[in-house]
Amino acid sequence: MDNQKRFFLTESEIPTQWYNIVADMKTKPLPILHPQTKKPITVDQMTGIFNRACSEQELNTTDAWIDIPEEVRNEYKKYRSTPLVRAYGLEKALDTPAHIYFKNESVSPIGSHKLNSALAQAYYCKKEGVTNITTETGAGQWGAALSYAAKIFGLELAVFMVKVSYNQKPYRRLIMQTFGAQVIASPSMSTRAGKDILTKTPTYQGSLGTAISEAVELAMQTPNCKYVLGSVLNHVTLHQTVIGIEAEKQMAMAGEYPDIVIGCFGGGSNFGGISFPFMRHNILEGKQTQFLAAEPAACPKLTRGVFEYDFGDEVGYTPLLPMFTLGHDFAPANIHAGGLRYHGAGTIVSQLIKDGYMKGVDIPQLESFKAAEIFAQAEGIIPAPESAHAIATAIREAKKCKEEGKQKTILFCLSGHGLIDMTAYDQYLSGDLRNYELPQEEIDKCTSRLEKLA
Amino acid sequence: MDNQKRFFLTESEIPTQWYNIVADMKTKPLPILHPQTKKPITVDQMTGIFNRACSEQELNTTDAWIDIPEEVRNEYKKYRSTPLVRAYGLEKALDTPAHIYFKNESVSPIGSHKLNSALAQAYYCKKEGVTNITTETGAGQWGAALSYAAKIFGLELAVFMVKVSYNQKPYRRLIMQTFGAQVIASPSMSTRAGKDILTKTPTYQGSLGTAISEAVELAMQTPNCKYVLGSVLNHVTLHQTVIGIEAEKQMAMAGEYPDIVIGCFGGGSNFGGISFPFMRHNILEGKQTQFLAAEPAACPKLTRGVFEYDFGDEVGYTPLLPMFTLGHDFAPANIHAGGLRYHGAGTIVSQLIKDGYMKGVDIPQLESFKAAEIFAQAEGIIPAPESAHAIATAIREAKKCKEEGKQKTILFCLSGHGLIDMTAYDQYLSGDLRNYELPQEEIDKCTSRLEKLA
Repeated sequence: MDNQKRFFLTESEIPTQWYNIVADMKTKPLPILHPQTKKPITVDQMTGIFNRACSEQELNTTDAWIDIPEEVRNEYKKYRSTPLVRAYGLEKALDTPAHIYFKNESVSPIGSHKLNSALAQAYYCKKEGVTNITTETGAGQWGAALSYAAKIFGLELAVFMVKVSYNQKPYRRLIMQTFGAQVIASPSMSTRAGKDILTKTPTYQGSLGTAISEAVELAMQTPNCKYVLGSVLNHVTLHQTVIGIEAEKQMAMAGEYPDIVIGCFGGGSNFGGISFPFMRHNILEGKQTQFLAAEPAACPKLTRGVFEYDFGDEVGYTPLLPMFTLGHDFAPANIHAGGLRYHGAGTIVSQLIKDGYMKGVDIPQLESFKAAEIFAQAEGIIPAPESAHAIATAIREAKKCKEEGKQKTILFCLSGHGLIDMTAYDQYLSGDLRNYELPQEEIDKCTSRLEKLA
Repeated sequence: MDNQKRFFLTESEIPTQWYNIVADMKTKPLPILHPQTKKPITVDQMTGIFNRACSEQELNTTDAWIDIPEEVRNEYKKYRSTPLVRAYGLEKALDTPAHIYFKNESVSPIGSHKLNSALAQAYYCKKEGVTNITTETGAGQWGAALSYAAKIFGLELAVFMVKVSYNQKPYRRLIMQTFGAQVIASPSMSTRAGKDILTKTPTYQGSLGTAISEAVELAMQTPNCKYVLGSVLNHVTLHQTVIGIEAEKQMAMAGEYPDIVIGCFGGGSNFGGISFPFMRHNILEGKQTQFLAAEPAACPKLTRGVFEYDFGDEVGYTPLLPMFTLGHDFAPANIHAGGLRYHGAGTIVSQLIKDGYMKGVDIPQLESFKAAEIFAQAEGIIPAPESAHAIATAIREAKKCKEEGKQKTILFCLSGHGLIDMTAYDQYLSGDLRNYELPQEEIDKCTSRLEKLA
């Protein structure tokens, strides 16, 4: 009971650079293609949608370390370093010999890791003279973070929020509005993309893919406006590596190095954020750390998806990405982990899976909430439904340690708290929650795509 | 921009003792009286309702420092020290020469300072063989904290939640249920106290005073059950002094000492927690720090209340406390700062006001939400409506500094975040919120009580 529970860095130890794993990868991801020409996209072409700095970061395959602008780092200081916590309570509850650590991103003012990239992207937009930005949000964690970042850097923001979350999570909508953002339920009638979908399926509850289409469309049609994305793309994951870089220093303070690193997986930025700084030692020095990406069984692109070029959005406005995907028109079940309802895996992670550096783990919804309950009662923190997938995976591994009598060191990222997701807990506690598997017709679609590729 | 923003203590620097200001007060508070005999209450009599350790702490007037049990300190380590933050963003927004600091208790896993006493009280109950505990909660911050603490130490808990908050804040109720507590809207039909009130006023929306009556009644009628209180009494404030003791060390790290210390004021434990460790230097060494207790204009016991013996609850189950009070049957308006809707000030604070060591400040509801909005947009943290009263007071003082060209150092306690109070922000943002003044008939009641006492 006398051992240290939490580890912090001083402000001078907060990272000054992000880590770009692509520079160290022996097999680079296939190039991102222009959606019309189908040729590798250029920075200039990317700036049709994104700001220039992020476009350059997106296509940077040579610089392993990229400077964090001083203005962004100053904002980081308001909440970073986030604590690395030894989960003694959880270890005791599981009676496991494993040492379990979590990086607690839930203490960010917005309640999740999303602020790490929101601040960076808002800063770059402002610096380049952009006045308006658009984005999508699933459960609302990203939208809330960007609303705050937009306010800090003086930008106007319109957020397309996936309709099922818009209705399930009114508090997150209100948080965005408190920071002065405009929030629209997606699909909406305010874009062609939204109108087309609603005309075809009037009751469609939305998906991240659809919301991205709407946000991109509005950005393309508005003067001096750029689109800003909360995950999936390389530059977003780049910004999130501040998590793993801090965690590596903090694990050293604890005198340990993880055998297993776990993150939940939606678009991949949280997972890449905690993992890539550790994974570089696997790539460069042959370390054997295991990396597990926890995705919902209802949206299993890592384990069931097909590796092919696909769009990042529903309609096909974004560049074509070489990745594991369930298809850009995949309509995920209405699970509460709204941030994980995304069809594709992003280019870096997809290549890393192919190269055997990491693997996906599928977590059913009920297992994720059971894990959340165990964690809350042991550590006092009610986790976001997304983060609960990482916790469930950590619990599986910790139980394995107990069975095998092995004392492994497990690190997971607690990407956010669930205080605004309490209706989901209400359903869980009252027994109204159920599991969703991938429907057979979706499995068939993947199979037929695989056959075509073969 | 290069100066340090946040200050933390190492785990070994986390306080090992709480501070009992009564031992240092030159004029001790008048004694607490037994509700029936009207004679000074004894520890044995107090244990009819409370656990023994807290009863002893309640009546301890000699020991300035009281050891924090190792089991409690170990739980503190899960979230303490909380950060002391230099509010550069707020200073900039106000363009003030003042240096503003806040002690951020909102990063506790439960989202407020309440856990500091909840852990202590639950621990003592468990240690003394208690199996069941009861309590009241206003906005739900205390109930949420105690639910977690009860789970940690293996106690069954029943929470009487003020009805207006029960309806306004369903998420807090769900948090308590996630931790396994039973939550009842107060007034309820499950106690005599509740039945009596509902029979007289069926639409009564509840108050902390009523909820306390119900919780005390249930505790008295249940075997092996103790009542646990979230504020008002001396031992609760004692536990909260961990806030101020940490803050003093952290202010020293920042190279400053506050000219003004501010806390919002409901039952007084948050205010005493941040203030008393600093106030001891006023008492012992003649320092001239100013202490401001921010109460809602709708419930102004510090500025409008009468100093007299009064009950802590609606019905009159608790001991009689010598304090500034609006009367134990006072029915406060339904403001969103549910934790500040309490009629009395507690014995220590009441004596300190009489002795000129501190004073109350009345904040109208709209001013509190305007302050919350300014703070949220500057610092990224959406504050609890209660804490917004402290922020409003800090903003008033910072503006005064600007007008007078003085560079004072202001410290306030951010007692909790408001992520679960977003319906209140919804009303504020849509212009539906209004101010409540003390009704004339309540002022008349106070005046007539004053005349009787004179």
